[in-house]
Amino acid sequence: MRPLALTMGDPAGIGGELTVRAWLALKAGGPAFVVLDDPDRLRALAAALHLDIPIDEVATPDVSGFASALPVLAVRLAVPARPGRPEPANAKAVIASIEQAARLAMAGAVSAVVTNPINKAALYQAGFAYPGHTEFLAALTGTDGRQEMMLASPELRVVPVTVHAGLRDAIASLTTARILAAARTAAAALRRDFGMPRPRLAVAGLNPHAGEGGALGDEETRLIEPAIAALRAEGEDVSGPWPPDTMFTAAARARYDVAICMYHDQGLIPLKTLDMAQGVNVTLGLPIVRTSPDHGTAYDIAGQGIADPTSLVAALRLAAEIAARR
Amino acid sequence: MRPLALTMGDPAGIGGELTVRAWLALKAGGPAFVVLDDPDRLRALAAALHLDIPIDEVATPDVSGFASALPVLAVRLAVPARPGRPEPANAKAVIASIEQAARLAMAGAVSAVVTNPINKAALYQAGFAYPGHTEFLAALTGTDGRQEMMLASPELRVVPVTVHAGLRDAIASLTTARILAAARTAAAALRRDFGMPRPRLAVAGLNPHAGEGGALGDEETRLIEPAIAALRAEGEDVSGPWPPDTMFTAAARARYDVAICMYHDQGLIPLKTLDMAQGVNVTLGLPIVRTSPDHGTAYDIAGQGIADPTSLVAALRLAAEIAARR
Repeated sequence: MRPLALTMGDPAGIGGELTVRAWLALKAGGPAFVVLDDPDRLRALAAALHLDIPIDEVATPDVSGFASALPVLAVRLAVPARPGRPEPANAKAVIASIEQAARLAMAGAVSAVVTNPINKAALYQAGFAYPGHTEFLAALTGTDGRQEMMLASPELRVVPVTVHAGLRDAIASLTTARILAAARTAAAALRRDFGMPRPRLAVAGLNPHAGEGGALGDEETRLIEPAIAALRAEGEDVSGPWPPDTMFTAAARARYDVAICMYHDQGLIPLKTLDMAQGVNVTLGLPIVRTSPDHGTAYDIAGQGIADPTSLVAALRLAAEIAARR
Repeated sequence: MRPLALTMGDPAGIGGELTVRAWLALKAGGPAFVVLDDPDRLRALAAALHLDIPIDEVATPDVSGFASALPVLAVRLAVPARPGRPEPANAKAVIASIEQAARLAMAGAVSAVVTNPINKAALYQAGFAYPGHTEFLAALTGTDGRQEMMLASPELRVVPVTVHAGLRDAIASLTTARILAAARTAAAALRRDFGMPRPRLAVAGLNPHAGEGGALGDEETRLIEPAIAALRAEGEDVSGPWPPDTMFTAAARARYDVAICMYHDQGLIPLKTLDMAQGVNVTLGLPIVRTSPDHGTAYDIAGQGIADPTSLVAALRLAAEIAARR
């Protein structure tokens, strides 16, 4: 099994703490990963947290010593990182960490890319031109515009059709084509990456009670039902549009493998309500495997040693599982 | 303690089954209720379900024999009820059951009204002119337009600011005044009816990440923050606008007593995902106490004896608790 590549993320955020704690959690049983980060800042961080983290500076993604030391491919910071204080001078290193991880994955030297959280605002100041990780990785791998975000936890998988937009704009941008694209990408990913030969898709309605036959909105009949009909004609096992409020109960979840959701919070409210800690973000539609923890830089608690590595550990494990299936 | 009044609901739905099962669940320990229903149809229903339900036809809301028989104030059906087959000829009896329950509550002869589910479409055909129970009860009690719906379960209480409208229309109808009205009514109800001298209100954002500082929508700054400021100036313990996807985790829920939600599914997705069976609908802002189970007529399973009375039993218990505090 080839190693995973883990990026630095924003060095003012909780990424470094999560990295060293994830190594502690995984050093005995794996999966093994190499982190693209500044070895000096990781050493200083471990010391500040009173953690014994031997650092192994490697020149290639070599994880043969993973059980006894954290392997680091050096990406040097311009100025020392301070918890909670984003530093535009370090944006170049943050971006380089992602670029190098993607390059290693494209070259087959690592099996997957797992990304620590970034602060987009800090990167924009340094000229970063992408809305986020996903679009940057799409550009680096030459696959712009075909990505979908899946959030996966032990309880539930969701793929929101619209993502980072205000709710009004999200509704206005909803089309049958967008619903179809998200559902097709989700179905393909479940087949290839999750070992499900015949995944069951549940498509949410947009409106309360899924529109109640048109009395509470027409998007179900106008946009969603045509997408469901097309998916069914393609041979997919698909159901819906489901009333959003009852489709995430335990009994309902047992009847599908992924929920295709119409907007961000429709999927993320039940996912995080059911399991805040173990949600993992999986980018579908890239030629490389990419996962990330389902939280941000958490400046408010950075450097305090209280950040919870559960989601990063789950992201590393899921990346290894997906890579093993490809 | 005065008895509760339970309405018939749609006789083609699951209401009758729920009523007899709720009596079985509560006959030993209470709270005692009288049902406004057709004694003959309840007898026939109990026989069909092989349940031993002695019926006590009473002329007044007398529950002195509640432990040994179900007290029924007779409201006769025009034609026999058939499970799953709504019958316009019976609409008059369905409406009369609600009217009489409200009248008994206004007169102080019962302590609260608990309503079984109705089918509004079947009532409209018979000339019923209200969007639902709430508006009908508001008219019957002379308090039109000041009601809010609270959904309460052991895990969570939510008050949606907008309710039965398509999501686009719900967003368009959102105003600071509507948010304020819902929050004030919720706070007053928690003080009077739930024994909380200083309730903690958590106000949800509308957009993903609560708008992310305006990047994902402006309703937070334009509509929601002014409402929060006004509530705070009135002395309420209020927080928000919270990112909707993280405000329903167990840790977040521990910090508030009620979530003021911007649309139906924002509140009902987490409520039903956490606890499908025990959700209770409480109408706030009526001069009488009114609760109802958090589900519909369920024609698809009516008459089969498999309907779950948990929500109706919870609705009866909560109505009694509220009535005891008034």
